[in-house]
Amino acid sequence: MPLPATPPRRATIRDVALEAGVSRGTVSRVLNGEPYVSAEARTAIERAVAKVGYVPNAAARNLARRRSQAVGVVVHEPHSLFLEDPNIGSILLGANAALSAADHQMVSLVIDSERDSRRVVRYLGGGFVDGVVIVSARRDDPLLAAVARLGIPAAVVGRPPGMPPVPFVGIDNRAAAQAITERLLATGRSRVGMVAAALDRDSGADRLAGFRAALGDRFDPRLVVERPLYAYGAGRDAMRELLEREPTLDGVFAASDVVAAGALDAIRDAGRRVPDDVGIVGFDDSVWALRCQPALSTVHQPAMDLGRKAAESVLAQMHGGAPQLEGVMLDTHVVWRASA
Amino acid sequence: MPLPATPPRRATIRDVALEAGVSRGTVSRVLNGEPYVSAEARTAIERAVAKVGYVPNAAARNLARRRSQAVGVVVHEPHSLFLEDPNIGSILLGANAALSAADHQMVSLVIDSERDSRRVVRYLGGGFVDGVVIVSARRDDPLLAAVARLGIPAAVVGRPPGMPPVPFVGIDNRAAAQAITERLLATGRSRVGMVAAALDRDSGADRLAGFRAALGDRFDPRLVVERPLYAYGAGRDAMRELLEREPTLDGVFAASDVVAAGALDAIRDAGRRVPDDVGIVGFDDSVWALRCQPALSTVHQPAMDLGRKAAESVLAQMHGGAPQLEGVMLDTHVVWRASA
Repeated sequence: MPLPATPPRRATIRDVALEAGVSRGTVSRVLNGEPYVSAEARTAIERAVAKVGYVPNAAARNLARRRSQAVGVVVHEPHSLFLEDPNIGSILLGANAALSAADHQMVSLVIDSERDSRRVVRYLGGGFVDGVVIVSARRDDPLLAAVARLGIPAAVVGRPPGMPPVPFVGIDNRAAAQAITERLLATGRSRVGMVAAALDRDSGADRLAGFRAALGDRFDPRLVVERPLYAYGAGRDAMRELLEREPTLDGVFAASDVVAAGALDAIRDAGRRVPDDVGIVGFDDSVWALRCQPALSTVHQPAMDLGRKAAESVLAQMHGGAPQLEGVMLDTHVVWRASA
Repeated sequence: MPLPATPPRRATIRDVALEAGVSRGTVSRVLNGEPYVSAEARTAIERAVAKVGYVPNAAARNLARRRSQAVGVVVHEPHSLFLEDPNIGSILLGANAALSAADHQMVSLVIDSERDSRRVVRYLGGGFVDGVVIVSARRDDPLLAAVARLGIPAAVVGRPPGMPPVPFVGIDNRAAAQAITERLLATGRSRVGMVAAALDRDSGADRLAGFRAALGDRFDPRLVVERPLYAYGAGRDAMRELLEREPTLDGVFAASDVVAAGALDAIRDAGRRVPDDVGIVGFDDSVWALRCQPALSTVHQPAMDLGRKAAESVLAQMHGGAPQLEGVMLDTHVVWRASA
């Protein structure tokens, strides 16, 4: 499909073709996510896109397609968790607020399996949405690579390791986890463990790194129990395991509020008092934190703003703005309540 | 757009045009949701569609459009509630299970305002999904009328009053509400009230009707407090109001589990014991029922199956099956626990 002239100073598809040493048709096929292009050509084109700073021209693409006035929000979590974790809910609410204000339809797509992942890529590449926000992507997530290849306006909430050059909105999980762990240690606890979760995501891995940094020489890997997901059941079961491993445990950092809610119930079931016997802190400052008994000390993260900023980035790209690849980092702070 | 020949015995667009006394082009425009058709012609065509039993031929329509392999699930609730109510979540899980098994993408669309409603109709009419499941539609919902007019494969969870001829999957809310209220009365309660909700939907209105039927002559309208939504905060606030109106209240039926969870906290905050002073029962048998302290007596409704059956109906229509307009009713049963 021929593209109209682009504004001066902006790299064109021709520049990409020249740089990659392939035809413009091949570049088009790769950018449109079509199959039957050699891996070699694909790699050369992706490198060339990055080198010449080519930004697909949304207006030109839309001439060839009916506009959907819709933006996809892809959540890469089991469907059940998507409904259990109010943090994901808040991110969606924020994204919806920005999209709705611009009269765009938010379309939620959940990736629960590899098959879903392929189907979502097909959907995104089919012109059924004009842009996409991606939530909770994994390390080297093939979805991110596919989105970068399609060249549709996109933004990521978080900053998964190995991500291609796509705008992102995140928080400093490592520094925040270190801050809340230090605050927990300052209450005089001596045997402090962690229920870690989602280590295949930047949030999970960085929170563990922050916990480790706060403990320094006192870090004991035996006092870390890992679970794959931020889930209530994961927190409850992992906490049981932690108390079995270390009956003298007197403090715990749970990787999210919903994990902390499960852990808190396990501590109570074991006949221990919170915060007297065991102090517990979470991460998110979601509705779970206030429903915990006692109310949970935690890290406030601006979940709605993460969704809103990511959606605003996508809208700006849809209107021809260049993607801001350096990313946006939002502030967090410790909220101290009664659980530690 | 001309349609190819349809199978024998099946009504065609020509039959609709003859019956309505308009051109085939006008029928096409109405069925495709295009504007600029007189209200008179639209009404005549809608009547003719019903009379001749015309079923839009999905295969024919898809020849003219790229298939999306996606099915929309429209939830007509505030976005925040969509994430708070596990009943909606379970319906989505069930729909996703059926769609995923058929390798179709579930696309969730939330309607939170009138503007959203118009945008969703535009999206559904734009060929971006191949079918649609509608959850929690309201009385005389314009979305249902629009979907019927578009003629896309559709199914409704519930059976809102005034709905056009669209397949539906539901439960008998009235009989189930009557059964749980009678069980509550059988524990020897004498002053029994209700926190009613969502009276603009069949579920809310029918649950109130069932409560009323169980009480018979003892029904006292002063002991019913209404709220617009099935929400935790609504249950808490309405219960406070109910206890102020009637301090001797000793039983309450909450219109859903999440409403009951809020009501239960309000009863406890008022210094009353559950079930000793006040017996409380809910509706749904969602995760909220088991998280309540004490565990909630409630009505089990097969939420996942509602979503699954509705999605299966849409898939069957997409593959050329005729819509089953008589609807499907699923079973419910009382689950008796410790809260009454």
